Amino acid sequence: MRARELAEQTPMVDLDTDALVAARLMAQQQLPGLVVRGEGKHPFIVLPGSQVLRFIIPSYVQDNPALARVFDEKAADKIAESLAGRTVRDVLPGRQDITTVPKVNHDDTLIEVAAIMAQCHSPIVVVVNGSEVIGTITIRRLLRVLFSDESPA
Amino acid sequence: MRARELAEQTPMVDLDTDALVAARLMAQQQLPGLVVRGEGKHPFIVLPGSQVLRFIIPSYVQDNPALARVFDEKAADKIAESLAGRTVRDVLPGRQDITTVPKVNHDDTLIEVAAIMAQCHSPIVVVVNGSEVIGTITIRRLLRVLFSDESPA
Repeated sequence: MRARELAEQTPMVDLDTDALVAARLMAQQQLPGLVVRGEGKHPFIVLPGSQVLRFIIPSYVQDNPALARVFDEKAADKIAESLAGRTVRDVLPGRQDITTVPKVNHDDTLIEVAAIMAQCHSPIVVVVNGSEVIGTITIRRLLRVLFSDESPA
Repeated sequence: MRARELAEQTPMVDLDTDALVAARLMAQQQLPGLVVRGEGKHPFIVLPGSQVLRFIIPSYVQDNPALARVFDEKAADKIAESLAGRTVRDVLPGRQDITTVPKVNHDDTLIEVAAIMAQCHSPIVVVVNGSEVIGTITIRRLLRVLFSDESPA
């Protein structure tokens, strides 16, 4: 089996997409990460869900999670509202964090896909054929193919 | 809302669980990570799915994914079989990789949970009350609570 046979059409967002819309898309479709169409040297960006959480976490809390205590329970429940009026571009992590785009070639084997997911620590990778994007592979799909063929123990 | 209200009972595995059984559990239940009951200084270990993939990837391929090319397509399809007869303990990454156990306290707020997930780069965290494990929180559940209350855009 090759990467192109595993590729699915995952919804992508743009840098100008409303950040709240992007985060809701991820929540509603139960995506393990967000694929963002970028620009210039980064034609696409893949953010694992845990990094999308950074959208709503003030940077001083990211640096020191203990500071999250300054938000009381009610304020914390409503933290998603902090995204209102901001775009994906506004909330992306710094460029230094997105230089390693998890990307596989359309003719990569399952173990190549697995190795790249593991190395990049990402639950979603983009499948490309040259400069063309074929789709994405989620870890859910890869694990299903690798481990669900046989009956459970 | 507090972490304990979000906690769910995720199946856990033991260090002595068959590695193939553990990986299938993850695949079939679509878990974003695996919670392993450890021992001694590591009473539990949380591995994101991308790290569970390391179970089946030879270490020389992890070091250099290009070496995955040595497996032809048929061999790659059957790579999961390499787990046969091995336990979770056998395939866990080195101790240095598991010292940061993503753990939240039962009375943490949503933003504290989010901050810890983001910092640990983990789609699943363990909720504790002192030394007692209450359950786990997946990123899927956290995102649903944070973003799905209101109607989609």
